[in-house]
Amino acid sequence: MSKITIAIDAMSGDRGVDVVVPASLRIIEEYPNLRLILVGDRSTVLSTLAKYKAGESDQIKVHHASEVVAMDELPSQALRYKKDSSMRVALNLVKEGAADACVSAGNTGALMATARFVLKTIPGIDRPAILTTFPSRNEYGRVRVLDLGANVDSSAHVLFQFAVMGSVLTSAMDSIAAPKVALLNIGAEEIKGNEQVKETARLLSESKTINYIGFAEGDDIFKGIADVIVCDGFVGNVALKAIEGLARYIGTVIKEAFKSNIFSKLAALCSYFVMKSIKKRLDPSRYNGASLLGLRGIVIKSHGGTTVRGFETAIKHAMDEVKHNVPELIKTEVERAFSKEHVSLKQKVLRKLSDLL
Amino acid sequence: MSKITIAIDAMSGDRGVDVVVPASLRIIEEYPNLRLILVGDRSTVLSTLAKYKAGESDQIKVHHASEVVAMDELPSQALRYKKDSSMRVALNLVKEGAADACVSAGNTGALMATARFVLKTIPGIDRPAILTTFPSRNEYGRVRVLDLGANVDSSAHVLFQFAVMGSVLTSAMDSIAAPKVALLNIGAEEIKGNEQVKETARLLSESKTINYIGFAEGDDIFKGIADVIVCDGFVGNVALKAIEGLARYIGTVIKEAFKSNIFSKLAALCSYFVMKSIKKRLDPSRYNGASLLGLRGIVIKSHGGTTVRGFETAIKHAMDEVKHNVPELIKTEVERAFSKEHVSLKQKVLRKLSDLL
Repeated sequence: MSKITIAIDAMSGDRGVDVVVPASLRIIEEYPNLRLILVGDRSTVLSTLAKYKAGESDQIKVHHASEVVAMDELPSQALRYKKDSSMRVALNLVKEGAADACVSAGNTGALMATARFVLKTIPGIDRPAILTTFPSRNEYGRVRVLDLGANVDSSAHVLFQFAVMGSVLTSAMDSIAAPKVALLNIGAEEIKGNEQVKETARLLSESKTINYIGFAEGDDIFKGIADVIVCDGFVGNVALKAIEGLARYIGTVIKEAFKSNIFSKLAALCSYFVMKSIKKRLDPSRYNGASLLGLRGIVIKSHGGTTVRGFETAIKHAMDEVKHNVPELIKTEVERAFSKEHVSLKQKVLRKLSDLL
Repeated sequence: MSKITIAIDAMSGDRGVDVVVPASLRIIEEYPNLRLILVGDRSTVLSTLAKYKAGESDQIKVHHASEVVAMDELPSQALRYKKDSSMRVALNLVKEGAADACVSAGNTGALMATARFVLKTIPGIDRPAILTTFPSRNEYGRVRVLDLGANVDSSAHVLFQFAVMGSVLTSAMDSIAAPKVALLNIGAEEIKGNEQVKETARLLSESKTINYIGFAEGDDIFKGIADVIVCDGFVGNVALKAIEGLARYIGTVIKEAFKSNIFSKLAALCSYFVMKSIKKRLDPSRYNGASLLGLRGIVIKSHGGTTVRGFETAIKHAMDEVKHNVPELIKTEVERAFSKEHVSLKQKVLRKLSDLL
């Protein structure tokens, strides 16, 4: 396999170098063809490497960047004033072709804004989207959902582009010929959904390139009815956070129950291995790594509070996108979709109007 | 305490009379001042009562209705063609003053459409909302969230009314002087949220009657930062269903892990009481019963697939709303809010415009 080079934003995330460096050292052991460029304050990165009795090597290089984007920094501020941040310099390396992808555990808004500014969007894609993976009961054991918060008030035209991008990525990375694509909607309404969803459903039904299977409701995410679920970033972000919140809440309830008295503590001891296997199956670090899709380059956003193992998963995810050259696949598919799709005059006018507004 | 009469839609829900009748018989034992009118096919209801060695009594009456609204029936169809449905007749009893509230486990869309048609909305309320309760880490152990799917594309004006209704109900039912009200939003965007959310935040910040504490994200639902969380029905419904889906998924993973081999089965035996206490704490039947708020009458929607215990919870919820006369409180508060609020000329114009559109 040919060599893969990934630029790693070494300074961002809740624990910065303390997670990024050990994750990097572990993953290069596993993949000898992988090279990592750790971007950040040279002396901090080197001294952290030294803690693990490591230094620069064939597989690990350090690239200096003097600044760090704070986790709560406004995207516009980061874009304007942090031109030598580890995040921005890592993205520049992708832009210049020195790296095949970038992985960052930094502030989502700043990463998206900077990536969009540095890399630009693929022709035909109006707005990039954030895609992540959830466990699901389909045969692949997972479902990919987008957008998770890059855009709000997405038009039908933009939601349609998300469907194309999600379908292309899933097809390549999960080797599914025609991934089942569903549109997130609600069930209680007479004529289901809001205006954008209804219009998107029309566009998807007419599409010859997307295997559109219809609407999905919130609980369908885990049921495995679809391989890709498309939604507006507002809805997707609320759902993602609600899911994270419930998972944490259930975790706390279980922990408290097993710690409540001597008998429950004994029960905890007895069920140690079962609980460990449950924890492993539900471990969020197994799904860490969201794709910023629609850019002219591969950018993976790791959860800010992830573990070493979780950051490794994000790097693996980046490697997978590099192997499949996802941005190129999206570019080709967008060209194909928009030339082959039957685009009526009315749709063209509507699209122009939505672009102008 | 004075007598309370509740009209029960005895035929709706996934298991109809088989859940409704035993739940009704159990709850009248607990509350001697409660009278229930079981609305549905007389012979079916009577024969189900007979199975439990019961019949009509001081506390239980049967009111005949010849039709049932199917769980997947279109709301418009139900409204137009099912004029003698158990659901509609139960709502009529509230309208006529023969009952203080109605509880139904039927099709949400049909219940909302029929309730709105039969009972009408409270003056000053444009659109009713669905409110439900989630467990949360605040001192009351719960948070009330609305709207869960009655409305999509809600304007800022409508979201503001939801905040008023949610605040009034929570204040009365949880005895909180000034419930903390938050607006559901996302965190990733530079200038947070979509247009409606931004405008609603402005209205709530200017409000003198609502204790508005700012934005909440999806994971804040369970954190206990607020007593009431307001959102559009599309977002709320997706979040609710996603939460239900994840809870079911986690439940299945746990069950499978404990059943996987002889050792895990032994572990299950050892931790039987702990798992039982966890199940009890997370039991959705403890939170069953969503309020259809904003109507001139009390209507509680039970989950269609609820248990006997869950249906009892929904009836208790209806009793609570009757005791506090929630619709009257909302009416008073709406009058007060809209007369006392500082409504600028711009806002008045905007409101008129939004009404016209």
